[in-house]
Amino acid sequence: MKLNERGLLVVMSGPSGVGKGTIRKALFQMPENNFCYSVSMTTRKPRNGEINGVDYFFVSREEFEQNIHEGKLLEYAEFVGELYGTPLSYIEQKLSEGKEVIIEIEVQGALQVREKMPDAVFVFIVPPSKKELEERLHNRGTDNASTVAQRLAKAEREYPLAYKYDYIVVNDDVYNAADRIYAIIRAEHAKTERSIQKYTKLMEGKE
Amino acid sequence: MKLNERGLLVVMSGPSGVGKGTIRKALFQMPENNFCYSVSMTTRKPRNGEINGVDYFFVSREEFEQNIHEGKLLEYAEFVGELYGTPLSYIEQKLSEGKEVIIEIEVQGALQVREKMPDAVFVFIVPPSKKELEERLHNRGTDNASTVAQRLAKAEREYPLAYKYDYIVVNDDVYNAADRIYAIIRAEHAKTERSIQKYTKLMEGKE
Repeated sequence: MKLNERGLLVVMSGPSGVGKGTIRKALFQMPENNFCYSVSMTTRKPRNGEINGVDYFFVSREEFEQNIHEGKLLEYAEFVGELYGTPLSYIEQKLSEGKEVIIEIEVQGALQVREKMPDAVFVFIVPPSKKELEERLHNRGTDNASTVAQRLAKAEREYPLAYKYDYIVVNDDVYNAADRIYAIIRAEHAKTERSIQKYTKLMEGKE
Repeated sequence: MKLNERGLLVVMSGPSGVGKGTIRKALFQMPENNFCYSVSMTTRKPRNGEINGVDYFFVSREEFEQNIHEGKLLEYAEFVGELYGTPLSYIEQKLSEGKEVIIEIEVQGALQVREKMPDAVFVFIVPPSKKELEERLHNRGTDNASTVAQRLAKAEREYPLAYKYDYIVVNDDVYNAADRIYAIIRAEHAKTERSIQKYTKLMEGKE
């Protein structure tokens, strides 16, 4: 019996190459999971095969800007002339359905979320060592040497911000890391501040 | 990779009959667990099948009082005319060995521990309903009707103190409850406040 029935918003950050995407996939493969991935909004054109509402919410720049002005985005940023953001209403709907909503965002975006959703759980994913991250980025082979160097420099600036997160999870093994995040979600649901209301009703025999 | 290597002190409380002992047994049967049970000291007589040094240290009132005077107890309390307490030195040794030490104590004792060991994790175990607890106590058949009534009256006074604990776990199913406590322990180890030191060393390449 879960005393807190509202879902949790789990914000994952961590340096490029640390394996956030792989951990997310491992989480979604867990049996009986109740996870849901937050669909972002973007002004960029859909690529072949991309579905509106599944891969992204594809909108015009006017529509996106209206969303910003109406405070409908949890956070947003611009990349290469296109806007990307996280719609609040979708997240709110999923959370109220009891889904655990997982979002992967940059450290700067995460710190914005902290202010708007103090109830969210912030997890910082780290590599077992700096050397390991460097090797992973080189071996991934998707970036040239200068991009790898840029990513490593960015990681270097972000490492000291880990203390702003609630949890630090080492990605030494993807299943181990996913399992730890799953444990964090279960534990957070049992936290007294989240469960005391339902518990009180239970003890009054009202549920 | 665990960023916090010291063990956790997990303090479990909950009304008599809620199943703390059964949950503890389920925890200890988990694969690869690192749990260690702190054996309490008591002046009450052993029940059928209870073993000295395993279930409790059964001592005389004189011996118990000497332990109090010598400051050897983390906490102690008197309940239905009998003394119950937690020996301190054993716990400290196990925590420094990296063991997770589980102790089951009364609410009033737990609140004393909170002051002495602010680092401990406090879990309040509750029944799925009050009616369920009443039935369990009657069915257990270890107590006469007046003791059952005393235990229920005590539970009634303790329910409102749940908010002083870090977590509330419903014992609807013993394996489910044990699993949730295991998740709490894993999550607590990943908490930033517990892991930031080791993480910092890791990022400085010192470990």
